[in-house]
Amino acid sequence: MSSDRVVPGFIARESQAQHRRIDLVRISPDGSTASTDDVSVEEPLEITITSEGLGTDRESTSSITMRTPGKDDELILGFLFSEGIVRNFEDIACIEHSTPANSETGLHNAARVTLAKEITFERQEIERQFTRSASCGVCGRTSLESLLALKPASTTDSVRITAEFLQNLPDKVGELQEEFGRTGGLHAAAMFDGDGRCTLLREDVGRHNALDKLLGAAFMAGTLPLSGNILFLSGRSSFELLQKAAMAGIELVASVGAPSSLAIEVAEACDITLAGFLRHDSFNIYTHPHRISTR
Amino acid sequence: MSSDRVVPGFIARESQAQHRRIDLVRISPDGSTASTDDVSVEEPLEITITSEGLGTDRESTSSITMRTPGKDDELILGFLFSEGIVRNFEDIACIEHSTPANSETGLHNAARVTLAKEITFERQEIERQFTRSASCGVCGRTSLESLLALKPASTTDSVRITAEFLQNLPDKVGELQEEFGRTGGLHAAAMFDGDGRCTLLREDVGRHNALDKLLGAAFMAGTLPLSGNILFLSGRSSFELLQKAAMAGIELVASVGAPSSLAIEVAEACDITLAGFLRHDSFNIYTHPHRISTR
Repeated sequence: MSSDRVVPGFIARESQAQHRRIDLVRISPDGSTASTDDVSVEEPLEITITSEGLGTDRESTSSITMRTPGKDDELILGFLFSEGIVRNFEDIACIEHSTPANSETGLHNAARVTLAKEITFERQEIERQFTRSASCGVCGRTSLESLLALKPASTTDSVRITAEFLQNLPDKVGELQEEFGRTGGLHAAAMFDGDGRCTLLREDVGRHNALDKLLGAAFMAGTLPLSGNILFLSGRSSFELLQKAAMAGIELVASVGAPSSLAIEVAEACDITLAGFLRHDSFNIYTHPHRISTR
Repeated sequence: MSSDRVVPGFIARESQAQHRRIDLVRISPDGSTASTDDVSVEEPLEITITSEGLGTDRESTSSITMRTPGKDDELILGFLFSEGIVRNFEDIACIEHSTPANSETGLHNAARVTLAKEITFERQEIERQFTRSASCGVCGRTSLESLLALKPASTTDSVRITAEFLQNLPDKVGELQEEFGRTGGLHAAAMFDGDGRCTLLREDVGRHNALDKLLGAAFMAGTLPLSGNILFLSGRSSFELLQKAAMAGIELVASVGAPSSLAIEVAEACDITLAGFLRHDSFNIYTHPHRISTR
């Protein structure tokens, strides 16, 4: 097995093939014409977790996500952090490519995370988290109870913004979202500070991946928890996205799409202001509206 | 452990709580007003698979999906079918609720599928499929090779439609999509016959779940494979959605959103016509355009 060992803090060697030019037939009022366009690349990433001192394959567990290649280290770190598996850099011994690059695509589609010796490797517990720590009927916990057991970051209450601030976010992100403009096929997660500056933006075919990459970048930069920041999501808001926001201590989440019932429950319980259906002239506030002022 | 045993072919006892009324603050040009709205319910469903003759918990594997409650049997059957785990009703001994209903929500969030004795229970193989049969870097197969190994249904080549036929689909689905109109928070998967009649429509907070429910309904009705049918998807098209379409023998997939690179690869290899960016006056055809005529 070939192995490119990556020290945490350094971006893994990775392909940047985020889009690919393809041929297509375009149907329009002018008729049918041969054309080309760029599409977003979707490839699997298999993440295997093991622990220092445990070398055998039986003592590992793995998860596959379909992602847009690039910033894989961020994706992995953001995923591990938001699932409560790691808290700090010290919890990770290394992240490495566990197989050679695919001969056709040149991509590394498998990574192995070795947790530090100090981290107890609870295979069953991590497997449950890998299946999204969402339920569970079996242990009797509700989704919300399972999340609270992960001990999400305490939010501060420092964000105070205007309705206009939020109404401007879709345009700001649109201008910054390089890949979406090219392919129309990517979700975005963007972080704004209280002055309306975009401090981080990540894109991916999977909306969870986009947020994992953003949180992984913050993890690397040592800026977690993200109190005082506003998170913008290009799609709908779900339980999993709000779980990630809660783990990172984000105070305000604004999405272009609708929230689910569980997204609202998490926001309510974790003191997160949740806004949805964000438009130029309107939006809804579902929880903790005191952070948003209207004139 | 309480258990409501469900014979395949009968819909499980289930809650129909697909939406929930919530309070919110509405921000509009008129200012800020207290209001209410319906949001789509999102709850976990834990699916455990075991086999007749194997009774212990060690010999089972489980997966959690976040879904909109209702038609859980369809969701489970569509999922098992499209992952290549079952082919016919005879492959399933029973599906049962494996825990009591949640005391707060009244929902059953865990189900146990017992495969028939004849079905070899390959725990590792099913676990790989549970992690989405997508990769894998480890076994060296590409995503497409893994899918082809599941032996998707052979497509016939019987669909011949006009561009106008496809351009009318978004409106037709919009009229039929009850829950989306209410909450704005659901994905739809809809099946049309060659005459433009909608024969099946399913909605869910998860786009994969919507398609699994649709395929599960066809599985129950004994109408698989779905040759001669057209599948409409309300969102983007991904590898997983095209895998499900391929397993069901669907010839033409049209989505409102963009396709990913892998969605196009699967469509190309499995002889599926893939259309995207479906609008009233335009769309793109990515693969096998011969099934769509333009004037």
